[in-house]
Amino acid sequence: MTTLADLDTPAALLDEPRMNRAIARMQQRMDTLGVALRPHVKTAKCVEVARRQREAGARGITVSTLKEASEFFAAGFDDITYAIGLAPHRIGAALDLVRRGCRLKVVVDSLAAASALAAATRRGDTGAASGVSAAARADAGGRLDVLVEIDTDGHRAGISPEAPLLLEVGTVLHAAGLLAGVLTHCGASYGCRSAATLEAMAEQERSRCVRAAERLRAAGLPCPIVSVGSTPTALFARALPGVTEVRAGVYVFYDLVMAGLGVCAPDDIALSVLTTVIGHQPDKGWVLTDGGWMAMSRDRGTQAQPEDQGYGLVCDEAGAVLEGWIVNQANQEHGIVEHRGGAKAGADVQGRFPIGTRLRVLPNHACATAAQHQGYAVVDGAAVKARWPRFSGW
Amino acid sequence: MTTLADLDTPAALLDEPRMNRAIARMQQRMDTLGVALRPHVKTAKCVEVARRQREAGARGITVSTLKEASEFFAAGFDDITYAIGLAPHRIGAALDLVRRGCRLKVVVDSLAAASALAAATRRGDTGAASGVSAAARADAGGRLDVLVEIDTDGHRAGISPEAPLLLEVGTVLHAAGLLAGVLTHCGASYGCRSAATLEAMAEQERSRCVRAAERLRAAGLPCPIVSVGSTPTALFARALPGVTEVRAGVYVFYDLVMAGLGVCAPDDIALSVLTTVIGHQPDKGWVLTDGGWMAMSRDRGTQAQPEDQGYGLVCDEAGAVLEGWIVNQANQEHGIVEHRGGAKAGADVQGRFPIGTRLRVLPNHACATAAQHQGYAVVDGAAVKARWPRFSGW
Repeated sequence: MTTLADLDTPAALLDEPRMNRAIARMQQRMDTLGVALRPHVKTAKCVEVARRQREAGARGITVSTLKEASEFFAAGFDDITYAIGLAPHRIGAALDLVRRGCRLKVVVDSLAAASALAAATRRGDTGAASGVSAAARADAGGRLDVLVEIDTDGHRAGISPEAPLLLEVGTVLHAAGLLAGVLTHCGASYGCRSAATLEAMAEQERSRCVRAAERLRAAGLPCPIVSVGSTPTALFARALPGVTEVRAGVYVFYDLVMAGLGVCAPDDIALSVLTTVIGHQPDKGWVLTDGGWMAMSRDRGTQAQPEDQGYGLVCDEAGAVLEGWIVNQANQEHGIVEHRGGAKAGADVQGRFPIGTRLRVLPNHACATAAQHQGYAVVDGAAVKARWPRFSGW
Repeated sequence: MTTLADLDTPAALLDEPRMNRAIARMQQRMDTLGVALRPHVKTAKCVEVARRQREAGARGITVSTLKEASEFFAAGFDDITYAIGLAPHRIGAALDLVRRGCRLKVVVDSLAAASALAAATRRGDTGAASGVSAAARADAGGRLDVLVEIDTDGHRAGISPEAPLLLEVGTVLHAAGLLAGVLTHCGASYGCRSAATLEAMAEQERSRCVRAAERLRAAGLPCPIVSVGSTPTALFARALPGVTEVRAGVYVFYDLVMAGLGVCAPDDIALSVLTTVIGHQPDKGWVLTDGGWMAMSRDRGTQAQPEDQGYGLVCDEAGAVLEGWIVNQANQEHGIVEHRGGAKAGADVQGRFPIGTRLRVLPNHACATAAQHQGYAVVDGAAVKARWPRFSGW
């Protein structure tokens, strides 16, 4: 049996029981709320992880790049929402996925993008060398649906639900037979600081997105899909009338940012980085490890939270949190582990953490930390049960 | 001919003329100072880049992982310094490289690591299944040299040049026939704010490392190698008596952190990320691009500098800096480009940067941004001359 002791460091560990609990929790919550769950696979970028989400009841997936769409389609996922505004130069590649049988949904939030898409669909553009007609695409079983991105929190992209532009974009898309609904992502939820504000943010995300759908329908335009979501709003929403599906991603691993929001506990976090102690600066109470920012990422997502976790919260090799110890500084291949209380609280670091000691580190932001690794060592206790690859790039 | 217009985005661009100038500049500087240059290849992790450094006169390379050592050794680089404290569990892999003919230099800063290495060398440990004696390793032409890491700035690892521990570690290594010198890296140079403080820091790095070498020699211990370096101290050192070699890495690309220190100008930066405009929030003066933190990294290295560059400084597609425009916010696959002056200064973003516009972004930290990509599009003007892969992982 392969065990933690057989792994080189730094290594990304995926605690399978914790992940399975997270998947079950989110699916149960969505089932209770009566909406479909379409997980965002950008966190793990791993086919095996997405399969477990599907087995638990997820319907379709969400991706952040066409590379993800292509990889997951090749692995048998054919209901895919690409949730980033479609750039015109990617229309050919998107239509090529459709031609090959993918039920792809894409997102626009401007007249320019909607018009480019409508024109390309009429022409039958594809990413392949030969042109393929819309009829041929339909023959292949694929279908391109377009969602209008709605801005429900002012934090990124999307059209305001009250803007005249919403109906203009909807009309262009409908004339091309492409309009399928509305989509929003309430990233502002990451800035909430209490359960009450998270609940309010979830309701804001819901109500504004539903309002956009109602405006389209009132104008005689179809809007079957009403897609909302982020991990915090998904878990704090009290009810989701008018919503058809929820997208959430980071819940599959959770992370310290989510723990800081009260969305999970540190013990729920399924992703960690296994590191080895390589030195000390005893006078400063420093423990040097081989887990620097290359292994953790440069994400400092807890910096603005009440409890700044540095570059990560330190656990023993078995995964038990070592209270007070964080990766306080990081160079490319060095982590500097310190006690929050400083050198005095961190006395006798050489005795407590001898060279060769293995420590696990919980990450600030699972999406960013996972992206630093080429795969996961899937662990259950000390056993390494599998190695799952993840993909990267565009 | 492949041109910038043929590239999908986001893509890491490597401006070859700029890189060649940077390589020539550093080599000339080291030649003038009379020391060898041993470039740190962790920035580019690219064999083609290191070949150009070697052709310009570099002697040997520096690496931050044994994966890099192994990859570069396979590509014909056989004089390699692994400049991170050697963890005991990596001794076998290091000795295996030596057995295969690599002139590997490793670094220790503790009695524990020095003793483990001395014991393993006596036993003839290897990473391969079969044990190989020291004699057999010598037959193969390889050689393991050990450098004692010296702390010259209090910022990370290393032994103080005045500490009794220095002689203890040196004695253990010499008894095993391994002691080859001293090595330091003055990372504190990144916090300097003027040419005068950079010059002073370079002299501190030099004088303290030379002092450690002199203490070893005074105790009858050999110390042929005195290795110092960082890009800022390399370029600001006025003289380097007693130093035998300089290590520097990021100079090969430069970045905004280096520009903020006065080490280079933004126009010297050879690495950039090509992005596409995918949307706008006109009321806020926002331009949304497909260059988010996955493409730029989460590194915010200019945050503490007088001029905070956000997630990067924006240029037009040809690489000319667009004064005042930075990537002010980043999500995973979204960059939010804003003018420093806010929405008023950034008026008419839709007219100025229509959807589909391509923008280049100069990175805060070349090592971190390059690590987000699997390779480089090597450009000279609008021509894409080559694709060079880079490797990652451990």
